Amino acid sequence: MFFASDNSGPAHPSVMNAVMRANEGFRFGYGADEEMARVTTMVRDLFEAPEAAVYLAATGTAANSIALATLTKPWETIFCTKPSHINEDECNAPEFYSGAKLTLVGDDNCKMTAATLRTALDAEETRGVHGPQRGPVSITQVTEKGTVYTLDEIKAVTGIAREFGVSTHLDGARFANAIVTLGCTPAEMTWKAGVDCVSFGGTKNGLMGVEAVIFFDPKHAWEFELRRKRGGHLFSKHRYLSAQMEAYLTDNLWHELATSANTSGKRLADGLRAHNDVSFPNEPEANLMFFEMPRGLHKKVQAAGAQYYVMGSLDGNDDEPVLGRLVCDWSVGSDGVDAFLAALNA
Amino acid sequence: MFFASDNSGPAHPSVMNAVMRANEGFRFGYGADEEMARVTTMVRDLFEAPEAAVYLAATGTAANSIALATLTKPWETIFCTKPSHINEDECNAPEFYSGAKLTLVGDDNCKMTAATLRTALDAEETRGVHGPQRGPVSITQVTEKGTVYTLDEIKAVTGIAREFGVSTHLDGARFANAIVTLGCTPAEMTWKAGVDCVSFGGTKNGLMGVEAVIFFDPKHAWEFELRRKRGGHLFSKHRYLSAQMEAYLTDNLWHELATSANTSGKRLADGLRAHNDVSFPNEPEANLMFFEMPRGLHKKVQAAGAQYYVMGSLDGNDDEPVLGRLVCDWSVGSDGVDAFLAALNA
Amino acid sequence: MFFASDNSGPAHPSVMNAVMRANEGFRFGYGADEEMARVTTMVRDLFEAPEAAVYLAATGTAANSIALATLTKPWETIFCTKPSHINEDECNAPEFYSGAKLTLVGDDNCKMTAATLRTALDAEETRGVHGPQRGPVSITQVTEKGTVYTLDEIKAVTGIAREFGVSTHLDGARFANAIVTLGCTPAEMTWKAGVDCVSFGGTKNGLMGVEAVIFFDPKHAWEFELRRKRGGHLFSKHRYLSAQMEAYLTDNLWHELATSANTSGKRLADGLRAHNDVSFPNEPEANLMFFEMPRGLHKKVQAAGAQYYVMGSLDGNDDEPVLGRLVCDWSVGSDGVDAFLAALNA
Amino acid sequence: MFFASDNSGPAHPSVMNAVMRANEGFRFGYGADEEMARVTTMVRDLFEAPEAAVYLAATGTAANSIALATLTKPWETIFCTKPSHINEDECNAPEFYSGAKLTLVGDDNCKMTAATLRTALDAEETRGVHGPQRGPVSITQVTEKGTVYTLDEIKAVTGIAREFGVSTHLDGARFANAIVTLGCTPAEMTWKAGVDCVSFGGTKNGLMGVEAVIFFDPKHAWEFELRRKRGGHLFSKHRYLSAQMEAYLTDNLWHELATSANTSGKRLADGLRAHNDVSFPNEPEANLMFFEMPRGLHKKVQAAGAQYYVMGSLDGNDDEPVLGRLVCDWSVGSDGVDAFLAALNA
Repeated sequence: MFFASDNSGPAHPSVMNAVMRANEGFRFGYGADEEMARVTTMVRDLFEAPEAAVYLAATGTAANSIALATLTKPWETIFCTKPSHINEDECNAPEFYSGAKLTLVGDDNCKMTAATLRTALDAEETRGVHGPQRGPVSITQVTEKGTVYTLDEIKAVTGIAREFGVSTHLDGARFANAIVTLGCTPAEMTWKAGVDCVSFGGTKNGLMGVEAVIFFDPKHAWEFELRRKRGGHLFSKHRYLSAQMEAYLTDNLWHELATSANTSGKRLADGLRAHNDVSFPNEPEANLMFFEMPRGLHKKVQAAGAQYYVMGSLDGNDDEPVLGRLVCDWSVGSDGVDAFLAALNA
Repeated sequence: MFFASDNSGPAHPSVMNAVMRANEGFRFGYGADEEMARVTTMVRDLFEAPEAAVYLAATGTAANSIALATLTKPWETIFCTKPSHINEDECNAPEFYSGAKLTLVGDDNCKMTAATLRTALDAEETRGVHGPQRGPVSITQVTEKGTVYTLDEIKAVTGIAREFGVSTHLDGARFANAIVTLGCTPAEMTWKAGVDCVSFGGTKNGLMGVEAVIFFDPKHAWEFELRRKRGGHLFSKHRYLSAQMEAYLTDNLWHELATSANTSGKRLADGLRAHNDVSFPNEPEANLMFFEMPRGLHKKVQAAGAQYYVMGSLDGNDDEPVLGRLVCDWSVGSDGVDAFLAALNA
Repeated sequence: MFFASDNSGPAHPSVMNAVMRANEGFRFGYGADEEMARVTTMVRDLFEAPEAAVYLAATGTAANSIALATLTKPWETIFCTKPSHINEDECNAPEFYSGAKLTLVGDDNCKMTAATLRTALDAEETRGVHGPQRGPVSITQVTEKGTVYTLDEIKAVTGIAREFGVSTHLDGARFANAIVTLGCTPAEMTWKAGVDCVSFGGTKNGLMGVEAVIFFDPKHAWEFELRRKRGGHLFSKHRYLSAQMEAYLTDNLWHELATSANTSGKRLADGLRAHNDVSFPNEPEANLMFFEMPRGLHKKVQAAGAQYYVMGSLDGNDDEPVLGRLVCDWSVGSDGVDAFLAALNA
Repeated sequence: MFFASDNSGPAHPSVMNAVMRANEGFRFGYGADEEMARVTTMVRDLFEAPEAAVYLAATGTAANSIALATLTKPWETIFCTKPSHINEDECNAPEFYSGAKLTLVGDDNCKMTAATLRTALDAEETRGVHGPQRGPVSITQVTEKGTVYTLDEIKAVTGIAREFGVSTHLDGARFANAIVTLGCTPAEMTWKAGVDCVSFGGTKNGLMGVEAVIFFDPKHAWEFELRRKRGGHLFSKHRYLSAQMEAYLTDNLWHELATSANTSGKRLADGLRAHNDVSFPNEPEANLMFFEMPRGLHKKVQAAGAQYYVMGSLDGNDDEPVLGRLVCDWSVGSDGVDAFLAALNA
């Protein structure tokens, strides 16, 4: 009953085996390993992007920050939502790498829209050299609130970005989960929808710790490489990153694991929805969800051994509701979900 | 009829004369001039702060950014309002100097309150190492919208800041105008109200270009000096800055000039208020004001030669209102104001 | 015959097995895993430093840069040698993380001495606020040229550092190899010799990719944590780093692997030394060495399949000597060395 | 007898008068003043560069650092000499603004040569992504040691820079003095000799505090403007900078003042050279010079009231020589020089 995060469970055995297999003999370092050559081809094939520049980073914060820094000038501002990971959970890493600032689009909702983005972009209009200049737009898919942009919603956002001459980055920490929800292809959710750069996450979906950064326009390649090295994120024994990503891309493992996580997410959401005292601030659309329940109910579930993240104060009266977050990883399975629901309904 | 900004008018003759007088013989550079020794004493006397560290900078952006960087760690976030100069008009200078980010408090209003500040500070509570850490609070007095914090409002804000263990910076680009409005002393509006550091502006109030940065706790002194030098803001021929500030502090010139500007501001506001078609989004409290008027009326006034800043689109139908800003500097005087009002009422 | 780098060989099987074992069930992330709790204790025991702050990073550049940034102010300068890794091989990462600059001590030699360090520190003496201020000293052990500081040499350097009031960092990418050469304890080579902070390398000595950063004064702990997160170097699935380091510290594996590498190094150096046409710019003291040989000889060895790094131009006349670098990792063994020597002497 | 620095004397009366004249009425701020329009034309005419981008900054450190940041990427290294102002006297400002590092060319000499520059550029050749990348070359003219690059020497340096594909910046804090020494035109000493960007100094030559930054290729213009603003170096009351520069360029005042300073410098150098106990480490070629004299002689001259900068320890035995620096500004004149020489020869 561990629902605190999808980065708390184990890596998939196929991934571990691939890492073990990669541990043979000598390899050239720093990305010149043979595994990486195969990964590059596999990513390009998967995204139908034969020219794309493909790189690996070991953490999501590194992937996001170095990618954004490559797209941004230090006097620009990056447009994102308030709850976005780059705003709230990266301890100023995007600002550190880019030298730029963040402008928050819309309100507390996790999705920006064409309208809220246009308003934010417009607001920078008349200040000339005085204000921050318009920089890239960054959206997160699956959003931090557990919702999923439709393809039309992405296109609406990227359309506004292009109208203002800025690029779009997609933080895909849960990229695979969104693909499963939408039933579309990686190309459809990215460059075909106007996205210029994507962090294709693996860490939250069964890897030990690897994200791919993909630039559909390879002109950014060398700058990204230099920024990655300058950030200390170029691995000498790069093969262990490559091997994870190769296993992830083999036989659609990435899709299979996200399907498992989303199936658990749906089973969990359905069970919660059936309980009279539980409500969702946002309708769950993938493998994570926010819920509200009476504190007494929360205490009962926690006492039964369920682990999850609670927002705000941990103390409080029993009649004050609790806002919590549940995340299903690929490994939690129906047994884990059912155990939780049994505790809830006990 | 020049109301575009209070940095567009001339410097006061006393200031120019002081600069001329300072241009004699040789002086030690970099702040070791005899004028600066006197300025330090005068500022300490004026602020009733005999231990304060006092420095000069030539621009308001430099004064704010270097002061804030001295108070902030790169992994922190600075709390300010959305319309604050440091957020909208300094092209990322605060982020550049501090390495930190800005968190916007409240909505579009220029004043933060104890309540909105508490909400913003609370929101950083549970993220541990992941989120930005709480850094200083920065308020602007006179605010960018032309309103003035009362002493109680300042104390309420600094009280919350102290409760959370962070310091308070006051951007006093129009410090003197606020003092005139409130009828209080510099000490009352700063350290007696809980402010730790202040940019004491001169540029918008009759100097060629000088702001004093004052730390009431001198432990920050050496770090500020190093940051100022590293930013290229330490002047070799520092005497010309000192001379301006010395003239400003002599015979209460700073207060006299702000009184003149505020008097013009009140005369202008009264005249506008008397016109049926003009309204104020905020009640003007010092020497600058935002107004709304029909576009046709705006065109008439501009055609008569009035210069001021217009927000948003410069085109539009005559029935769409215009949001504009008027600022009275020390030199515009009643003639300038009356000319404007005559054009308005013609 | 792979001597290009000690980051090109496999990780030790015990390390891989530990990583596999760690891949079970759910763990709290971001360093709160149970493996890390054990690692902290083991490192403190090994270094006889019960108060030390202990952290992991996945790359040597990250370990060095974040550690140095924690010890340095942005207006300071870090004292290191010209061939040091932080100067030549980290693409400005130390400057990026610290905001400071590097001052090169001595000439091209990899060891600084009390005399050359004093000269460099003295040279910053009279500039006041104008010049960079004195920051920490950083030495590399084993040096980048394959030599090893004696304990007395380290003490001489740290003694000068303390005299000038600055701290000392030790880049221990090959820490274990130096311990084996000197036959001393980790405590003797670090805090007992005046070192304040050490990067305790594992990546070049049989791990997949982990370095421990150790501050003997724990006051630096929280700042390091924040800097690590801000740099994107805090791993969510931290257990895989911890597991590697735990295996490294179990049954003295770290020492055993370095002993193996150094033994190979000595065997290789002895074989080279016995060849009339080979010379050493520096006497090899651990597991890496620079050599000079005629280009014809180099070509013969390379044609036989030996891989190693060649400095400068890869073209050239047969009568121009080649300067190359050979590194023995823990796995190359006597067979690998003998194969090389056979090719050399063929 | 004030020879400590050429930034210690007064500004020229024509400059002060121009500033007074500029203090009339209202002006648009931030460089949109009419004076600046004239300055741009005058600078372009003077440098025979009708397309050049021309900007003003108030300090030499700002001019150098922002110009270099505009020419440099954060992963590059700037090539300069060890005694260069950007290395020794700007408290990390060039690194702060650019994010890059500095590579020192040659030894302690103030002039780099084609040979020493080639060696330094070559040394970055084989490290790929690991080492700093080659960035711009920066030379100082007049050098910090009081020598002057000949046109051929400049061309030799810029020729190497172009061969390696990097640009050349010229720190012209004493630009005018070098022009007087060489008897050439500004164009000949800059773009005709291969220089891409120049800081055209005024502060050390009779202004209160203004340097012009000139990019011969205007593509850098907008980036420079943004970087200047982001650094807090865009003046709202810009007219006071423009007025100084306009006076400087009117009737060749810049050339006249430098001629005066150089004439004093020659008179002083001749007088020193005639003294048996004084020697020059470098032959003086403009208005500043380093000298060595017995401590006893130094004490006698200082006791007579002469002020100048002494390197290293201020204490010492009378038989230890003193290394000092003398600088003649435009205003010191033959009387000042003769007073010094009288004290020396008393």
